[in-house]
Amino acid sequence: MATGPSPKWDISHANREGKTASLITVRSVLEKIMKNVNESDTRPVVPLGHGDPSAFPCFRTTRAAEEAIVDAVRSAKFNCYAPAVGIEPARRSIAEHLSRDLPYKLSPDDVYLTAGANHAIEVLVTALARPAANILLPRPGYPVYESRASFSQLEVRHFDLLPEKGWEVDLDSVEALANDRTVAMVVINPGNPCGNVLTLEHMKKIAQTARKLGILLIADEVYYHLAFGSNPFVPVGVCGPITPVLTIGSMSKRWIVPGWRLGWIVTNDPTGILQRSGIVEALKSYLNITADPTTFVQGAVTQILNNTTEDFFLKIINTLHKSADICYDGLKEIPCITCPHKAEGSMSTMVKLNLSLLEDISDDMDFCVKLAKEESVVVLPGFVVGLKNWLRVTFSVEPSLLEDGLGRIKAFSLRHAKKK
Amino acid sequence: MATGPSPKWDISHANREGKTASLITVRSVLEKIMKNVNESDTRPVVPLGHGDPSAFPCFRTTRAAEEAIVDAVRSAKFNCYAPAVGIEPARRSIAEHLSRDLPYKLSPDDVYLTAGANHAIEVLVTALARPAANILLPRPGYPVYESRASFSQLEVRHFDLLPEKGWEVDLDSVEALANDRTVAMVVINPGNPCGNVLTLEHMKKIAQTARKLGILLIADEVYYHLAFGSNPFVPVGVCGPITPVLTIGSMSKRWIVPGWRLGWIVTNDPTGILQRSGIVEALKSYLNITADPTTFVQGAVTQILNNTTEDFFLKIINTLHKSADICYDGLKEIPCITCPHKAEGSMSTMVKLNLSLLEDISDDMDFCVKLAKEESVVVLPGFVVGLKNWLRVTFSVEPSLLEDGLGRIKAFSLRHAKKK
Repeated sequence: MATGPSPKWDISHANREGKTASLITVRSVLEKIMKNVNESDTRPVVPLGHGDPSAFPCFRTTRAAEEAIVDAVRSAKFNCYAPAVGIEPARRSIAEHLSRDLPYKLSPDDVYLTAGANHAIEVLVTALARPAANILLPRPGYPVYESRASFSQLEVRHFDLLPEKGWEVDLDSVEALANDRTVAMVVINPGNPCGNVLTLEHMKKIAQTARKLGILLIADEVYYHLAFGSNPFVPVGVCGPITPVLTIGSMSKRWIVPGWRLGWIVTNDPTGILQRSGIVEALKSYLNITADPTTFVQGAVTQILNNTTEDFFLKIINTLHKSADICYDGLKEIPCITCPHKAEGSMSTMVKLNLSLLEDISDDMDFCVKLAKEESVVVLPGFVVGLKNWLRVTFSVEPSLLEDGLGRIKAFSLRHAKKK
Repeated sequence: MATGPSPKWDISHANREGKTASLITVRSVLEKIMKNVNESDTRPVVPLGHGDPSAFPCFRTTRAAEEAIVDAVRSAKFNCYAPAVGIEPARRSIAEHLSRDLPYKLSPDDVYLTAGANHAIEVLVTALARPAANILLPRPGYPVYESRASFSQLEVRHFDLLPEKGWEVDLDSVEALANDRTVAMVVINPGNPCGNVLTLEHMKKIAQTARKLGILLIADEVYYHLAFGSNPFVPVGVCGPITPVLTIGSMSKRWIVPGWRLGWIVTNDPTGILQRSGIVEALKSYLNITADPTTFVQGAVTQILNNTTEDFFLKIINTLHKSADICYDGLKEIPCITCPHKAEGSMSTMVKLNLSLLEDISDDMDFCVKLAKEESVVVLPGFVVGLKNWLRVTFSVEPSLLEDGLGRIKAFSLRHAKKK
């Protein structure tokens, strides 16, 4: 192309309104860390960075789910566009499926299908954003909330999760942060990144706080039913009679199929108050102009829910339980790492780095980059999820590989330990 | 729920920043019109409102594509998360596939996968939006551009397509509208809603205009290769050496699988100028925080492209050709309708309503609502695509049903004709 006037689409120096500032995503940081892995290392990479165990045979999804997709595709009934809210049979089946854990019955109209849970977060945050409003997010948390809030110019205020109290919500900080421009607060149950599971008692306190403050309660239950400690999984939706709850869910974790991109937003609203509030209308508005989940995946939902047997879920939970034990025991052996609370759910745990015990590690990112380089182990630096100089360790990998990885983290830590 | 302070999430009366104003979508208007269909009418509904022929046996996708999905799902290799830009094998296959029509070779890095073409529009418009900028869109056009531009606060300026010139772009109006805040112009080829196919000669003039104005050229080629008139389909990307072209594409139309949600954005940039401009970085930034296409659909792309035989494409084009002929001939018989240009591509045509010949029809929406009510025929009112008191008629339905529908439109029009 010959020279001419500078093209107007050249935005290399333009103000792009913080479009890159919001770009701290789990995916982008892990990609950066992965680049440090030494290709000549003959050992396998140990991916303890993100909750996607789908590549391991012990975490393979059930054939029943695969065959439901096969049947839906071959039926040729689901090659069409779908309604913006999702197809009715899938909404009905998910409503029935989730109602089993609730003291009231969801209707198909309570369920909105999304292209995975990240997309559900996008839809919810966009629907809630308005000028000068703010949202309360947990710290540590899941950074897609921050990215989408930043994109929608919704101010983020962080309340703390308390490691010494099993990562319960610091309700005092919630009350201190909320003001008359606060639209919602988010809880993640089972916890990502902390691996805690909310008790019914604490959940009720959260709901009462949300009600008292007049803010919406959003429950991220992407890891629903993945609980293996003393607290059973109870959906926050049981608090619907106290205050309406918007639940985010997905097939990704329970069926180990994050690539299938089928999530949902559910209005747990037994008193019908959300319908009248404009929230539902705002949700539908945005669903009309955003991505849709693949129609034949929607078409397979009923068969997936009907045909998945309890032994599949049990196998997954038992494997996660075993991995969580291995992870906790292995991390305990590493002097520079403190694990304040053993994971009882989800696929990850948060551990604190004691940098004063290490010689040449400047922070959590430096730890993770050097660990990848020297040991081909990938772990997420805590700053990504809001806790600088902590680590998020995902334990949903094949148990023997997890043991291998923990051994390498220990060897790395000992090698970098300060000499007495 | 007991009374208390008004919850802050009640936004039923709040300023929602035109979130609903941007809501004129094809889908939402068609849903509104569909509600008027008389349920006691025993005749089949004739859906001439949107380009989704997937339900008709004569438009069923090729088994080769279905089996590629089946194989990808059963392989269990694609249950995982995908990179934000899409998986490499799919990007490579699409690059090779599209390069066949170009005088230069695309690389896998030129291809960004999206959850369908609407999502590609979302990604592009979002990446281009910046304060006080504007974008030039065709009138008539495809309203997802308007919705997403409005959402991103990107000003829209419309240039005309000229019915008397086979819906060519009015390049004088493009030059008159562009200013130093114009980031891009959009052309749709083959045309939606007009069914025209751009000549190479006109395409080059468009590219030269874009280059002269220093604006980005976006080519929406969702209907690529669906051309059956005298102008062969040529991708606008052939003008890449004149000015960089961002192409939007999809499997939805050529394979008749809109529900599979697999689209792409391609940088046709043989001079490498886009890479340096910040546009590519802005695209990647947004892809990092937006929805992903289903991973196993990405995983099936290579096999779909390799195994689809030419006779499938020929069968679809022949059927569309036949339908376009039936449509043109049928509409010609209706006194209150003028069809300025016979469709030579895509799946729809634009026709003008002469309301002065009708007795009790106030406008295009009124025409469509009453037509649905009385004849169970669904047609899209032109205002949705930018031309008030025109109609967009989609002809991609089973030919005998199309004939039936056109007959009913004629009967409706005669019944509502002004008495002499």
